[in-house]
Amino acid sequence: MAFLVEADRLKSVLRATTLADGSRRENSGEHSWHLALYAMVLAGEAGPGVSIDRVVRMLILHDLVEIDVGDVPIHSSEGAAHGSAEVLAAERAAAERIFGLLPDPQGAEFRALWEEFEAAQTPDAVFAKSLDRVQPVMQNLASGGGTWVTYGVTAEQLEARVGVKVARGAPGLWEWVRERTRGYFRSAS
Amino acid sequence: MAFLVEADRLKSVLRATTLADGSRRENSGEHSWHLALYAMVLAGEAGPGVSIDRVVRMLILHDLVEIDVGDVPIHSSEGAAHGSAEVLAAERAAAERIFGLLPDPQGAEFRALWEEFEAAQTPDAVFAKSLDRVQPVMQNLASGGGTWVTYGVTAEQLEARVGVKVARGAPGLWEWVRERTRGYFRSAS
Ligand SMILES: [Ca+2]
Repeated sequence: MAFLVEADRLKSVLRATTLADGSRRENSGEHSWHLALYAMVLAGEAGPGVSIDRVVRMLILHDLVEIDVGDVPIHSSEGAAHGSAEVLAAERAAAERIFGLLPDPQGAEFRALWEEFEAAQTPDAVFAKSLDRVQPVMQNLASGGGTWVTYGVTAEQLEARVGVKVARGAPGLWEWVRERTRGYFRSAS
Repeated sequence: MAFLVEADRLKSVLRATTLADGSRRENSGEHSWHLALYAMVLAGEAGPGVSIDRVVRMLILHDLVEIDVGDVPIHSSEGAAHGSAEVLAAERAAAERIFGLLPDPQGAEFRALWEEFEAAQTPDAVFAKSLDRVQPVMQNLASGGGTWVTYGVTAEQLEARVGVKVARGAPGLWEWVRERTRGYFRSAS
């Protein structure tokens, strides 16, 4: 129960992305719920061998380390902050502390699932990462630009920082979504 | 995608319950995420024949009708508003509209899962309902009373409105949690 009460704090971690209506910034708890729903709805976009149930579990856990580390916006620091050695070390320490609140073997299982997500090597993790990257694109499209405006993102930067990773796990999905981003970037330039 | 953008509105549906730190009211999107995590962590409390993966899916979907209907606090109207014929009819219409945004068979599958949750007859739904009822108890304990203060709830009312239903799907869990509520109600009376 200590873990479940601690997890509540993820609802207070704010992301750069807003809600679809632009009314406020999204928090990482509700973002994780939205991603689990993405996995259920977009199951048909997953490649062979993907277990949607494992993807859902992975997405439920994937941001818990942000309780200690905060969210690192993908477009901040010209797209370089995400995945820096400092951020990775801090996330590892956070995983140690937070999953350590659970008894083993459950703590170890959850941590392994989070590490699998982070490593993005298995089919489940690659698909989960695709969803984590595409959801903010849909939020930005709905809200009229969102973090693309905040960070002055170009269509080329979006392709390099986001598109490539969405396409890795869900190529058809990225084709469909990229088409919809074209209108935005045409009118924004 | 229309469904996934519409679902975003669940993040703006406020519940009576607050975050564990009491800083603000919880929304139904982040609540649904928290419940999915409850299911993963408390899997060992589930009775025989329960599929945690189905319970997680059920909990991800269970509150979507609130986009149209809003959350009906369990302790409002002296505990009588929940489950009234009017609320049930409105929730059914909301399910029709919201799950209708998905193509079939997916829309029908999601709706069936929601109906299974509402009917609370299968082992999966009974366990999912137990979690939905116990999480606000944990939030109230953490925040120092929460909706028990708002609605002047007694230990007996908590037992009748909440405890019986938590115990139905997770008797050991309710025994553990009720013990922790005793201290609160002793000092509050
Ligand atoms: Ca994330």
